[in-house]
Amino acid sequence: MNRKLILAGLLLTVFALGSAAAQDVDATLALYSDAFDMLWLTLAGALVFFMQAGFAMVETGLTRAKNAGNIIMKNLMDFSVGAITYFAVGWAIMYGSSAGGFFGTDQFFLAGADSAVYRDWFFQVVFAATAATIVSGAMAERTKYAGYLLYSLVITAIIYPVSGHWIWADGWLAEMGFHDFAGSTVVHSVGAWAAMVGAIMIGARRGKYVKVGDQVTVKAIQGHNMPLAALGVFILWFGWYGFNAGSTLSGTDMDIAYVATTTTLAASAGAIAAMFTSWIWFGKPDPSMSLNGALAGLVAITAGTWVISPGMSVVVGFLGGILVVLSVEFFDKVLHIDDPVGAISVHGVVGAWGTLAVGLFGDLELIESGLTRGGQIGVQLLGIAAVFAWVLVTAFILFGILKAAKLLRVSEEEELLGLDISEHGAESYAGFQIFSNM
Amino acid sequence: MNRKLILAGLLLTVFALGSAAAQDVDATLALYSDAFDMLWLTLAGALVFFMQAGFAMVETGLTRAKNAGNIIMKNLMDFSVGAITYFAVGWAIMYGSSAGGFFGTDQFFLAGADSAVYRDWFFQVVFAATAATIVSGAMAERTKYAGYLLYSLVITAIIYPVSGHWIWADGWLAEMGFHDFAGSTVVHSVGAWAAMVGAIMIGARRGKYVKVGDQVTVKAIQGHNMPLAALGVFILWFGWYGFNAGSTLSGTDMDIAYVATTTTLAASAGAIAAMFTSWIWFGKPDPSMSLNGALAGLVAITAGTWVISPGMSVVVGFLGGILVVLSVEFFDKVLHIDDPVGAISVHGVVGAWGTLAVGLFGDLELIESGLTRGGQIGVQLLGIAAVFAWVLVTAFILFGILKAAKLLRVSEEEELLGLDISEHGAESYAGFQIFSNM
Amino acid sequence: MNRKLILAGLLLTVFALGSAAAQDVDATLALYSDAFDMLWLTLAGALVFFMQAGFAMVETGLTRAKNAGNIIMKNLMDFSVGAITYFAVGWAIMYGSSAGGFFGTDQFFLAGADSAVYRDWFFQVVFAATAATIVSGAMAERTKYAGYLLYSLVITAIIYPVSGHWIWADGWLAEMGFHDFAGSTVVHSVGAWAAMVGAIMIGARRGKYVKVGDQVTVKAIQGHNMPLAALGVFILWFGWYGFNAGSTLSGTDMDIAYVATTTTLAASAGAIAAMFTSWIWFGKPDPSMSLNGALAGLVAITAGTWVISPGMSVVVGFLGGILVVLSVEFFDKVLHIDDPVGAISVHGVVGAWGTLAVGLFGDLELIESGLTRGGQIGVQLLGIAAVFAWVLVTAFILFGILKAAKLLRVSEEEELLGLDISEHGAESYAGFQIFSNM
Repeated sequence: MNRKLILAGLLLTVFALGSAAAQDVDATLALYSDAFDMLWLTLAGALVFFMQAGFAMVETGLTRAKNAGNIIMKNLMDFSVGAITYFAVGWAIMYGSSAGGFFGTDQFFLAGADSAVYRDWFFQVVFAATAATIVSGAMAERTKYAGYLLYSLVITAIIYPVSGHWIWADGWLAEMGFHDFAGSTVVHSVGAWAAMVGAIMIGARRGKYVKVGDQVTVKAIQGHNMPLAALGVFILWFGWYGFNAGSTLSGTDMDIAYVATTTTLAASAGAIAAMFTSWIWFGKPDPSMSLNGALAGLVAITAGTWVISPGMSVVVGFLGGILVVLSVEFFDKVLHIDDPVGAISVHGVVGAWGTLAVGLFGDLELIESGLTRGGQIGVQLLGIAAVFAWVLVTAFILFGILKAAKLLRVSEEEELLGLDISEHGAESYAGFQIFSNM
Repeated sequence: MNRKLILAGLLLTVFALGSAAAQDVDATLALYSDAFDMLWLTLAGALVFFMQAGFAMVETGLTRAKNAGNIIMKNLMDFSVGAITYFAVGWAIMYGSSAGGFFGTDQFFLAGADSAVYRDWFFQVVFAATAATIVSGAMAERTKYAGYLLYSLVITAIIYPVSGHWIWADGWLAEMGFHDFAGSTVVHSVGAWAAMVGAIMIGARRGKYVKVGDQVTVKAIQGHNMPLAALGVFILWFGWYGFNAGSTLSGTDMDIAYVATTTTLAASAGAIAAMFTSWIWFGKPDPSMSLNGALAGLVAITAGTWVISPGMSVVVGFLGGILVVLSVEFFDKVLHIDDPVGAISVHGVVGAWGTLAVGLFGDLELIESGLTRGGQIGVQLLGIAAVFAWVLVTAFILFGILKAAKLLRVSEEEELLGLDISEHGAESYAGFQIFSNM
Repeated sequence: MNRKLILAGLLLTVFALGSAAAQDVDATLALYSDAFDMLWLTLAGALVFFMQAGFAMVETGLTRAKNAGNIIMKNLMDFSVGAITYFAVGWAIMYGSSAGGFFGTDQFFLAGADSAVYRDWFFQVVFAATAATIVSGAMAERTKYAGYLLYSLVITAIIYPVSGHWIWADGWLAEMGFHDFAGSTVVHSVGAWAAMVGAIMIGARRGKYVKVGDQVTVKAIQGHNMPLAALGVFILWFGWYGFNAGSTLSGTDMDIAYVATTTTLAASAGAIAAMFTSWIWFGKPDPSMSLNGALAGLVAITAGTWVISPGMSVVVGFLGGILVVLSVEFFDKVLHIDDPVGAISVHGVVGAWGTLAVGLFGDLELIESGLTRGGQIGVQLLGIAAVFAWVLVTAFILFGILKAAKLLRVSEEEELLGLDISEHGAESYAGFQIFSNM
């Protein structure tokens, strides 16, 4: 009898010790899993934040010296206004409990947030700001500063979060199997379609399209600082590793470098393709087209970076690079829509291409939508169209109100003088001799 | 009998195997814990290092073209001299065994360092260099290069480490419950108060304050490159995620993204507040003030980033943004202290505000000082005052000696010519037409 | 009997549960180990990618405004062409199954890659691109764009991967105990010796060396943008933390911060040494020499960053900083080899010095080659010489073919006009008044 008790006691002790230790181990392993995600998303988020500097440099470099300070103010402020807005409203609309798959309804001001919510908010706010900042380039050199501030607020509070909810939260497009890994549509197209509406409604810069009789002469208005534009592209490319690879959302994901690989290859192919396209078309390899080609490659692979093979990512990026040159020329020479930095083409047209490429070339088993190839292509097209329509309508209302309120466009005198002086009372290059008519 | 032996043997085997495996697991878990800290602090440290580029661009952009190379040399050298000095002396004074809570006394040249000490040194050296580099902006465009090198050496060897020891090591202020999470006072105020003493002792740039009779006319001397200044601010903001979130000091800390969140919100609020303040006051939203507003928001939240709620971090940053405009104007228009980039206001005045905000709004349970609200406010004020006094006295002695040795200020001719030519024999913008009188 | 069965059953259950749990734990621990490596190498790789921006800014800043866009195009394209090439061919030649220790033979287009291969490819491609981009600086302001593209392709496909295979894969130099931790020779010298051959074969820029009778007058051609050059150096230094510390190749390595420490100290010492050397020699502390000094310190410590003590890393960096000034002057004033940015000296001469320093000062127990001090020095010298010979021969053939095909140098008119206009049809600083004769 004694022996039995001792034996049972021993067994229980072994079991209890083992199980207590196992519980400690399990708790530690769970903590580490959280730590991987925390570190990865915070660092990736910081990289995406840094893309703001990239956009600021690209947009400044590709426009004129007399508007440099204004562009920088818009870039600084669309992030600043956007961050506060996304904290107060945007996050709730995007990731709050879904109202029928259309928009979120709670967590305003991050109410009830825990460490995981802060982690996700930080990673998401930098994406929201990316969408917002795309517009400033397309509407550069003529938009009223006060109007731009209001635009920033609305896109981050409503336009971006609603379509984002459809795709990245419990929304109807996600439900249908639409796949946009890191945001070719969610982020880039949203910004770009808003930019397109804005560029159309505000009209071209003075002197950009000169009508003589029936003929419209298209004038090239050169950017003032190519090294800054190039620096901006390198910064954007650098930040894109956070943008795409961070979108694994998990620090223990074994596809992080796979995503970095397809991202690298698509960007490279895009730059090369745009260079050759411009070389063949214009006779010389064009720097700003090549830089935009790298961005086009990045935008193109963003949706499918996780489901497209390295070899196909070269193709997707390459076609993106050709497309961006054709599109920039089409918007400029045919449609006469004045987009000083080519943002509509880079982020909108190529964003749509990248989203479609998921349907054409994506690994259906990874996508896990349960759709056939044709079905996936259809859903991707539907998503592109739905987001296009949503942004078109809301941006039209937004910019329409701003236009009616005379908050959209500066006066002719202000535009000629430059927005640095007229809007901010300060030159950006004091001491340098700059041609006054630029 | 046999059975008993077999039984005991089996039990022992199970136990031994389990316990050996458990020991292996424990060792691996401990290694991983160290790995999290190692990766996090190295990456965060690299981000903070990159802030040197931010300071260099901000200071260069906000001053004149003729001094750009000189400013860059000072930024390069305060880090280089600072790193060697902090290796030889600074770390020991700051983190060596404490002499009564006042300064450290061993570990010179990192004697006896293990991997954890290298990790901590790397993370700390970039903070020391941040404090050092703040001074170069406030004393820009007139300080002798050789004198500046000596200053860099002394602040990194003695001034910064001693007050740092009080707060971040086993020092008397830490003992009293003073809370400065990432260094509003330890880093930013220390640099700024030294800058203030330096700016007073060296006097204003020629032509900045023109006295006619009793009246002093204050001339605005514009910076020469706003895009670079803006780039610098974006780089600083980016690096600040390493600065603040890295100050958790642990890669498994679940508050890393919380810190990134309050940092983002305060910076955004600071930028917006400074923009509106300048808009109301000067009639137009001022770019350099808005950029300084973002920095002010960052400095303001640095002390309390971990203990202040997201909502209050907006308030703290917003007030920091208003304060920086008032302070810049006060130092310039009322006190006639010439600080070309506003460093005293951004890092000193707002640094003090951020340190006080911990007492006003910080979560006392997290601070764990055991103090009441009033007590915490008192200790925060004491710490602000003590560090102010320490830096005032030591910087006064340091710059006094440099002044007496004629190592402080360049001659009038050198200043007019620009320090690039006079101190370094090389223009920074060869080929560009630059107004000679700037 | 029953009791025995129950007992056995209980024991087996405890054992089985314990062992199943242990297997789960082991699997999780293995996953985490992979996750550390994945995160670390992806983030470090992104940092190294960002060095491309650093090279672009340094090379642009240290040359003339009329060639800025061309330099940027070359920097963008050597990465883009390089990445596609390294994907298709380079990786296979470098890390495929070894043919007798001389080159790899499989894994073209990353055939059969798993997540570990993608991880390693991403980390390696940015190193390959670093080697490639070094050349553009030394051959700046006179090289034909099309020829440069072909060069980029060949160095990334063949020249770099072959010598890389010798040292970092199963190659004959690795076999002999040659130690080059992060690539003083593998990356920097390879790029620099190719640059030297290119600079010799293309000849100096017009007006650089003016022969009057027997006397050659050496003209200094100043860079046009020191702030950009400085920004580039800060970016390179920042990226170098990924370059050197990432070369631990393991995210659980406890020497990551040690490497960051020696890297920081050597860079700082290099900057200080170059500054003082230029001060003593030219009478004033020279900005571009000091910036190159920081890079020299970084290149010098790259080979030995893991095996050289912090104290000795100061010495190695300091000597690197002196050496770079002497070498730049020697190549310019004595050999009359025109290297606009000093790339041959920074990456080649100092790269060789850093590689030798491993033999002189490296911890032999860590190196684990089993060689004596003298033996290690011998092998380091052998490696330096072998790589020098390999690059000399292959670069001579490559640039020889380009020269014969008239793809190497632009015409005199194109050079005078500037490559921005002649090669790309676009100015880089539209609107700025720039001296036409620069």
